[in-house]
Amino acid sequence: MAAKSMTIILHSGDLDKAMAAFILASGGAAKGMDVTMFFTFWGLNVIKKGGADRARLSKMNMGGLGTSMMKGVMKKHGVPDMNTLIKDCDELGVRMVGCEMTMELMNVPKADLVPEVRDIGGVGTYLDAAREGHVNLFI
Amino acid sequence: MAAKSMTIILHSGDLDKAMAAFILASGGAAKGMDVTMFFTFWGLNVIKKGGADRARLSKMNMGGLGTSMMKGVMKKHGVPDMNTLIKDCDELGVRMVGCEMTMELMNVPKADLVPEVRDIGGVGTYLDAAREGHVNLFI
Amino acid sequence: MAAKSMTIILHSGDLDKAMAAFILASGGAAKGMDVTMFFTFWGLNVIKKGGADRARLSKMNMGGLGTSMMKGVMKKHGVPDMNTLIKDCDELGVRMVGCEMTMELMNVPKADLVPEVRDIGGVGTYLDAAREGHVNLFI
Repeated sequence: MAAKSMTIILHSGDLDKAMAAFILASGGAAKGMDVTMFFTFWGLNVIKKGGADRARLSKMNMGGLGTSMMKGVMKKHGVPDMNTLIKDCDELGVRMVGCEMTMELMNVPKADLVPEVRDIGGVGTYLDAAREGHVNLFI
Repeated sequence: MAAKSMTIILHSGDLDKAMAAFILASGGAAKGMDVTMFFTFWGLNVIKKGGADRARLSKMNMGGLGTSMMKGVMKKHGVPDMNTLIKDCDELGVRMVGCEMTMELMNVPKADLVPEVRDIGGVGTYLDAAREGHVNLFI
Repeated sequence: MAAKSMTIILHSGDLDKAMAAFILASGGAAKGMDVTMFFTFWGLNVIKKGGADRARLSKMNMGGLGTSMMKGVMKKHGVPDMNTLIKDCDELGVRMVGCEMTMELMNVPKADLVPEVRDIGGVGTYLDAAREGHVNLFI
């Protein structure tokens, strides 16, 4: 029987890694999987209000493209932007959890996070989900 | 019973991460596991013709070594280079899949990829493999 | 039934990623899971004597903080430092394995590693553990 659940730790705040995380999460949820995303360290920046727009590529370019050009290319090819992906994930039932420790260290109150992040939790919260999942990724 | 399958997403184009991915993939296949590698974002560069030779270390040095010196040290110690690892993986039956979206965004036709990459697919292709696997890594 | 075991490959030598790895490992072990950590490439630096103190953040800052300020913030908030986490993991029974190939390439004898690393092994050692685990992460 195919695995029914997936967890993704997003530790990176880079645009390309965050995009990969949300594309995997929405793809899994669209297939009927239970998906939990856990945002920690730099990954927390992505789910701060306005944070998705500030994320940059991890490298100077990708096939010669900078962050703005890449966003243009994605738009042209119909790839949803990160704000849309976050909304899609929420509608598909992806559970998004902010890392409690990171929020404390970086002084980020829950009110600063996008409303699609409904939960706050720690390593125990993540592990409880991961132990039930088969597809567990650290990005 | 030990898990029979493994999937690896290679998102990074760095020499050291790509080496790790291919060493894990060939090691798994040599143990009789079904292995699927999915090359996305920067990872696609590694499977472009000539791409394995252009990959660089993610850091300026490793124990004081730059990319060329590291390659020399690897050779001296009998570690196969990336082109050899790709061939080994192919011979051991590792399935290598290029990410359709990345190819479209970066304008890379299938003809530009090394022949060992026999399939092109999307997030659904990856998830179908990952859901059957126990060892699923994002690199 | 919840998964009983976890493996973590630490490939990165960055402070923030190493911290995440040890926090996950100690959290899992505290829940009664069998945890194996495998230190490879840059990750080997972290388990060299004195290496935990030399690790730096992967980005210039996190919420405006550099490595030293971040360490201060962590201390203030009661987050254990990396040397303490390594000791905690050892006491909780986390198995720490140094990568044989990396040690050979970087000329690192076992005597240069912290004593909590009791084993040396290769990709086969890792895969034997990962195939029995459900939560397998590459960091």
